[in-house]
Formats: sequence, structure tokens, C-alpha cells
Amino acid sequence: MTVYRIEIAYDGNGFSGWARQPGLRTVQEELEGAVGAILGGAEVELTVAGRTDAGVHATGQVASFPLDGEPPDRFAERINAVLPRDLSVLAAEPVPDGFDARRWAQSRSYRYRVLNAPARDPFEEGRALWWPYPLGVTALRECAASVKGEHDFTAFTPTQTEHVRFERVVLASEWIEESERVLTYEITADAFMRSMIRVLVGTMLEVAAGKRTVEDFRELLEGAPRESAGETAPAHGLYFTGVTYGDGPAFTYPDPEPS
Amino acid sequence: MTVYRIEIAYDGNGFSGWARQPGLRTVQEELEGAVGAILGGAEVELTVAGRTDAGVHATGQVASFPLDGEPPDRFAERINAVLPRDLSVLAAEPVPDGFDARRWAQSRSYRYRVLNAPARDPFEEGRALWWPYPLGVTALRECAASVKGEHDFTAFTPTQTEHVRFERVVLASEWIEESERVLTYEITADAFMRSMIRVLVGTMLEVAAGKRTVEDFRELLEGAPRESAGETAPAHGLYFTGVTYGDGPAFTYPDPEPS
Repeated sequence: MTVYRIEIAYDGNGFSGWARQPGLRTVQEELEGAVGAILGGAEVELTVAGRTDAGVHATGQVASFPLDGEPPDRFAERINAVLPRDLSVLAAEPVPDGFDARRWAQSRSYRYRVLNAPARDPFEEGRALWWPYPLGVTALRECAASVKGEHDFTAFTPTQTEHVRFERVVLASEWIEESERVLTYEITADAFMRSMIRVLVGTMLEVAAGKRTVEDFRELLEGAPRESAGETAPAHGLYFTGVTYGDGPAFTYPDPEPS
Repeated sequence: MTVYRIEIAYDGNGFSGWARQPGLRTVQEELEGAVGAILGGAEVELTVAGRTDAGVHATGQVASFPLDGEPPDRFAERINAVLPRDLSVLAAEPVPDGFDARRWAQSRSYRYRVLNAPARDPFEEGRALWWPYPLGVTALRECAASVKGEHDFTAFTPTQTEHVRFERVVLASEWIEESERVLTYEITADAFMRSMIRVLVGTMLEVAAGKRTVEDFRELLEGAPRESAGETAPAHGLYFTGVTYGDGPAFTYPDPEPS
């Protein structure tokens, strides 16, 4: 028995998120089907680093699965040959016994892209939030800096939640000018709660539009209730970009499995 | 009577090219319909700098049309509000009398994008040619340099043609590393013949793959027959990126109108 790790990219627009759901097209189902087909019809169950929601993209998602025996030559290439074009395996490799893409993850990184331009851009449709209003970049940067460190993010996840612990440790948080027209928020944390980045971005955009102060934003980071934070920014601006792993299991938040 | 100039971007995947064709979805038809609707149902006929083929994209296309009276406030914004999401007006402005987006154009620029990576990229689907083979960048650059200047491009346009003069003057021609994985060919010329850039790229890729020499490629630039050049690269890697204008009509090639 060997554990395999695969790195994956997907355009989230055509998927109802990562996790299997009856009757819906999900990344997990497409990928488990393709890997199983290449392994001669085996049942494959993937463990994933970040269970992305409907519409969220990935450029560096990681999943793992146990494999009996040897995989075929050019494994990643073969899986890709049967995958649809909005989903691609970038790499596949054997990893140490016991590796688990979720439980070994020490940190996860995401990116949120905002097209700040007066006109829509056909090449950013479904790939960036179009925000044709003035944005105070200084305010965005002050907010992002305040997100670093350990905070209670209760205000940034839905009230009806399966999460039982609301503190997360943010290792990196900044706004970058990806181009003259695209502003990108990059965040790395030990783990994220559902919708957390989208509510952070939605609330920061309210600060940048002058509807809130940076001081208001900072106060939300210490366990304020959900209704005190801003709107949830749309899914199509969000990308899961990468994971870091150590040599064994990392601390994992005691979230109950969805019932 | 005022002449208006509009700058346009479109994702070519959903269009059968610029020029109107019965029963097909074209950029010209969508755009003339939208501009006309904003002008209260007027008949609008657009003149365009580059009549792109089916599947070809544009980031800086330019079109012009005469307008009786004043346009509404926020003209570009209003047109965009009725356009589909794969087509966008970036700017609309009045220009000097007699301006004609085709006849005043002094040069046109295009870009051809090649994804040189072992795995497909979901975010480059329909936006770059996927080329998972080794590429000799030095050979590509030598080819591109030889394209500069005036040449007879007979080898780089279909044999059945309405063009009557095959010389074109190339002002800029180079391969750029857009990212670690995307190589981009950028070319500016006074004008282009049908498929010219796609055959140039297809033939350069054969040189970069070692199937032809740079010297062979150079010899094609002096009026060689079509069958001596390489394959036509697919449309989805090609982008019309911009036009330069002078203060009046430029030299226009005496191509007959399609009959």
C-alpha cells in the first residue's frame, strides 16, 4: 500500500464545489471517477486539503489516496486524458506512509481577485469580482495587516455553523497589485472556516468604499457576531492556491463532519 | 454628424469572428445591435481595424461609426449594460471628422499565447495553445527577428485568397516569456493577411520542435508558396491587441471586398 498525492487545478465555475453531493457536478466526483478509471475501475476516495465551495477555483489544491500496487507510467498524464477540460492534475507522486492531504496540512493559502476597472473585462468573467467603484488601497492594506496573527473569526463565518472553535492563526495577509486593473488579496492561515475569506474581502471592500473605518474592521476580529461584518464576496473571485506540509500530522481543528 | 471611435475587448470562443454572417453569432452583429439600441433603435454600421476570424480574441480592437447628434451620457457604460459578458466596450469617444477605424490605421498588433507545460491548465482553456513538448526558445527568437521588415508573405496565407498584394511591413516581432509557463509572440505590422500570424506561429513551432531550421524559415519570407510553410496554429491562442492611428488615412492595401 502506497499513498499518492496529487496536485490539482480547476475552474470552479462549472462545479458545485469540491465535496460530493447527490445530483450535482463536483470536483471530488469527477476526479475520483477519473483516477479510478485509470486504475482499472478501482474505488478511490480522495482526502483533500481544502474543501472549496461552489464556484471557488483552485490552482494548487492537494488530495491524497491509498493505492495498492504500482500506478501506471505517466500517471498524471493518463488521468488528465480522461478529465474534463476545467479540471487538471498538475502532478502525482508517492508520499510517505500515513500522509493525509487534510490532516498533515500545516497551512493553506488562498487568493481573491478584484477587477477594479470602469468596464467589464471579458477575460475576467467568472475569474475576478468586477468592482467599478473607487477603492482606497491604503485602507485595504491596513485592514489586511490587522488580520495577521491569531483572532476569533466568528464574525466571518455563517451563524449556522458546524465549526466549534472560531480562532484561526493567519500567517500572511496582504493586498497585491497584480496588474494596473487587478487587485489581489493573498492570505495564508493554519485553516479557514466556511466563507471566511469571502466575508473578510466583502468587509474590507466596505472599508475601502468608505462605508466603515479600519478601526471598525479591526474590532470585528475579536469574536464579534456575524451580523456585524459585511457582505460575503462572490465565490468566483476566490482561488485555493496552495498548501504546506510537515513530516507528519498537524494540529487539526475539531470540526464535526457534516451530518 | 460626429464620428465615434470605440475600443472593444472580446473572448472569441463564442463568436464566428468579427464580420456579420447570416445565422452565425458575430461580434459585429452583437455590437451594432447594442450600439443601435442605446441610440434609440438607430441602424449602426461599424468599420473595424481588424476583421478577426472565428475564435480569435481581442483586447484592444477599434471600431468607428458616424453619429447624428449627441450620444447619451456615459455612452460606453450604457452599451456595456446591454452587451453579453464575452464582449465589452472599454471606451467610446468622438474623433475628428472623416476618421475611419480601418483606413486610418497605421499599424495593428496581435499576440499569440502558447502554454508550454506538461499538464493542461483549466484557466488557459480556449486562451492559449497548449504545447506540452520541449520548445527551443532561441530558435523561436531567431525566427521572430527574421520576420521584421518588409517581406512577401505568400507562404503564410491560404492559397485561395482575395488578397492581391502579398508584401507587408512588420514593425515588431518577438517572443516574450509572459510567465514561467506561457510564451507569447507579439507582432506589429502595417496590415496582416488572413491567417498570417497563425501560419507564422505554426511554422515557428515546427522550427522550435526541430522539424525545420531557422534558415528554412527565413527562406519562406520571400514569396515561397503556401505549401512550403507549416500548419495554421489554432485560433484560440490569438489576440488582436491594438492599433495606432495618424492624423488621416494611411496606406490601405487594395484587397477586394469579399464578394
